[in-house]
Amino acid sequence: MVNSPYQDLEIRFRRMDAVSGAMSMLHWDMSAMMPRGGSSSRAEQLATLSTLHHGLITDPAIPDLLDAAKADLHLNVWQQANVLEMHRAWVHEAAVDAQLVEALSRACSASEAVWRDARPNNDFKAALGGLGEVLNLTRQVGESKADKLGVSPYDALLDQYEPDGRSADIDIIFSDLESFLPNFLDDVLAHQGQNAPVLPLNGPFPTNIQKRLGQTFMTALGFDFEHGRLDESAHPFCGGTYDDVRLTTRYDEADFTSAMMGVLHETGHALYDQGLPKAWRGQPVGRDRGMSIHESQSLLIEMQVCRSREFLEYGAPLMREAFKGQGEAWHIDNLVNLATHVNKGFIRVDADEVTYPAHVILRYRLEKSAIQGDLDMCDLPGAWNEGLEKILGITPPNDTLGCLQDIHWYDGAWGYFPTYTLGAMTAAQLFAKAKQDNPEISNAITKGNFTPLMGWLQQNIHGQGCLLSTKDLLINATGKALNATAFKTHLKARYLPD
Amino acid sequence: MVNSPYQDLEIRFRRMDAVSGAMSMLHWDMSAMMPRGGSSSRAEQLATLSTLHHGLITDPAIPDLLDAAKADLHLNVWQQANVLEMHRAWVHEAAVDAQLVEALSRACSASEAVWRDARPNNDFKAALGGLGEVLNLTRQVGESKADKLGVSPYDALLDQYEPDGRSADIDIIFSDLESFLPNFLDDVLAHQGQNAPVLPLNGPFPTNIQKRLGQTFMTALGFDFEHGRLDESAHPFCGGTYDDVRLTTRYDEADFTSAMMGVLHETGHALYDQGLPKAWRGQPVGRDRGMSIHESQSLLIEMQVCRSREFLEYGAPLMREAFKGQGEAWHIDNLVNLATHVNKGFIRVDADEVTYPAHVILRYRLEKSAIQGDLDMCDLPGAWNEGLEKILGITPPNDTLGCLQDIHWYDGAWGYFPTYTLGAMTAAQLFAKAKQDNPEISNAITKGNFTPLMGWLQQNIHGQGCLLSTKDLLINATGKALNATAFKTHLKARYLPD
Repeated sequence: MVNSPYQDLEIRFRRMDAVSGAMSMLHWDMSAMMPRGGSSSRAEQLATLSTLHHGLITDPAIPDLLDAAKADLHLNVWQQANVLEMHRAWVHEAAVDAQLVEALSRACSASEAVWRDARPNNDFKAALGGLGEVLNLTRQVGESKADKLGVSPYDALLDQYEPDGRSADIDIIFSDLESFLPNFLDDVLAHQGQNAPVLPLNGPFPTNIQKRLGQTFMTALGFDFEHGRLDESAHPFCGGTYDDVRLTTRYDEADFTSAMMGVLHETGHALYDQGLPKAWRGQPVGRDRGMSIHESQSLLIEMQVCRSREFLEYGAPLMREAFKGQGEAWHIDNLVNLATHVNKGFIRVDADEVTYPAHVILRYRLEKSAIQGDLDMCDLPGAWNEGLEKILGITPPNDTLGCLQDIHWYDGAWGYFPTYTLGAMTAAQLFAKAKQDNPEISNAITKGNFTPLMGWLQQNIHGQGCLLSTKDLLINATGKALNATAFKTHLKARYLPD
Repeated sequence: MVNSPYQDLEIRFRRMDAVSGAMSMLHWDMSAMMPRGGSSSRAEQLATLSTLHHGLITDPAIPDLLDAAKADLHLNVWQQANVLEMHRAWVHEAAVDAQLVEALSRACSASEAVWRDARPNNDFKAALGGLGEVLNLTRQVGESKADKLGVSPYDALLDQYEPDGRSADIDIIFSDLESFLPNFLDDVLAHQGQNAPVLPLNGPFPTNIQKRLGQTFMTALGFDFEHGRLDESAHPFCGGTYDDVRLTTRYDEADFTSAMMGVLHETGHALYDQGLPKAWRGQPVGRDRGMSIHESQSLLIEMQVCRSREFLEYGAPLMREAFKGQGEAWHIDNLVNLATHVNKGFIRVDADEVTYPAHVILRYRLEKSAIQGDLDMCDLPGAWNEGLEKILGITPPNDTLGCLQDIHWYDGAWGYFPTYTLGAMTAAQLFAKAKQDNPEISNAITKGNFTPLMGWLQQNIHGQGCLLSTKDLLINATGKALNATAFKTHLKARYLPD
């Protein structure tokens, strides 16, 4: 039996998926396990696998196979969607030549290794060379892809993370938020000032107990430890593959809430990965729908669910038990206030959901300028500090708290930042509709029962893979295209209650 | 500038080395980190990388490049040796077609995953299917390589681990040992029976303290933690790459000596890897010389050095301090007796150096029969038990203590076992010569100073990579080809002192 073009493509893309999975594991290892001295061999390994992956997808046979598969009338809707996703992946990779791919991979590994030391040492100068090189190569990638996709270089990079995402749409939504947030933030801070002051939780909070509590919540939410792990790394992330999801966090013994919320956030990502359609493992259509949907899942769990009073009714007793917490600071009212405390801070990953969009909008504008060639990286610290002052009214005292804080640019992720805030809005829209569809969801959360919520997400998001476009997925699930209404409604209800 | 054929080969082999390094890391992860549910994706990843590696080395351009490089008169001796090793690697891989490579890799991953459960559950039947499949595919590999190498299928498999190793030579050396060991073992046991009984060290010995003690010894021996880690796995091994060496051990809180000696053994392997010639990183000539030399380095450290009174003069106080050991059991005489206690046991990895060759000879004969088609895997438990009874006079009560104990065959390592005992003999020959060349070595060991020994090993073995053949490497270092004399002399001096 000769394989049909479609079957041939499935075999080829399964192989590419295995190479990507191997790279993903090596990335996890690099962040969570690898000793420092391994970095140059690791860079060599990742660059080589990246080149081999590129070779597989740019095989001269692929375009004809894609054309033949598109003309195949016997494919079902999943197979058709699979071909579309194969085509999308091919367009992105075929646009860039192998040497550029390898050079970028190598530059990212080298730059990230330097950044690891430069961040705690507040040494932007040390990181600048690697960052400049990464940006330079990334711009070349953006320009190559822009030609093929018929979009701007920035949109071409954005499209890698957010398929069909366009900055013209993002500009509209971000402007809308920018016109809403400053006044709203003032109101929230004023309202917050009238409340009883938030009482701090006093530690120390031993790392091993924090880890155990995190695992308890992960298990309750449905994380499958037969298909994943929880470890530590400097920059928390959710990596690995859908069959073997590797979460990381970082622990602060003076404050357990930061790692706890980090773990809950990454668990949202992990549940999406673990819930992707099992029948389509290894195929493009079986992957996640893109970064704004991925982020919507982490923010739905962290922001919408786990910072709510409902969740804390279940979670607070477990926290008190774990850390022998007593007294007023551990009362649910104070814990809710802590989980929803708003303040203007320097660090994006520690930001509350009201100020978070400001951090993202700053990065979005800076990276767009950089890709357009309007911002040189040696001017980044100044532009960063000026921008944060303008958008949030505060200036970072050093680069550790400023432009060195995020791994993204140093590791080659340009065009990624806007997906955080698109995800926040998507999360609000999804959670509102889920509760409308199943009014049991909120009550179940107070009892630590996440099954009703997860059932809705599994059916509407996780199990859908890439069957639909991001836009159609959201319309299918909520009846509406993405807009800021649900997000604003959520913020008003939580932060300015009547 | 166009690359010369030799330069072209260097680029290609560096790429292959990166793929091998990636696979090695994924193997380590599979044993030390991976959750159970990740095994099928991991099998897919390893099979795919194995196929890609195979594709790189069997590229149609390679034979002509090798011919041209062999004719290149400008190459220095290292480059010439590099070409020889490239040729050797090419012969091995080109002999086997890609589908067989992929099928074997997949079968090994699946079989190893089943073995992980089958071993503690004493369930040979569960493991039999996978084992039979691995053997079947391994025999096909052996037959393909036998044709190209002009040797028997078993020798072709042996050659993978022990370049230029031949079973005809091994048969002679193993027969020599077999004629020496039974009487010697009787004498040793009789002599041992006249001594004061060995006193047990009573625990518990907490895992974290065992780990710290292991790290102390590793550091003293010269292990570079900037280029390596120590973790846990069911079957201890030394993996990773020369720039990032991953050691594993398993801890028993009732007996620290087993993990400690395991760590010291693996450290011997690791020091070899870390000491390979830095200028030849990523090239075939920069790799280890093969398994008997590799094993000689682990056995030199564990057996020759760390079970000696000289080492224990340095190590015993550290052990007593770590575990608060007091009394006669912790006296150096008793610790020496414990470290050199001989008894007939079922488990190879726990065996002393006197009975160890018996375990290896049993496996060597069984695997040779299996590859020749004279032993079916469903008859393995019987053949194993009968063979151990014959060679050591004891019969395993179950398969956990019998034919399920070693990962090797289940994971596809056929033709590997004899290298353990070749390594033991090589270790004895090297250590005797090192002490003859530098009489300071023994005295320095009593003070925890391993620099004189490591200097000799670095110069004579580690830094040599694959510049010479195994035979010439040993002649160069010791003035003699491998023979059993030094091993027998060592055993007599240690176990039957006057």
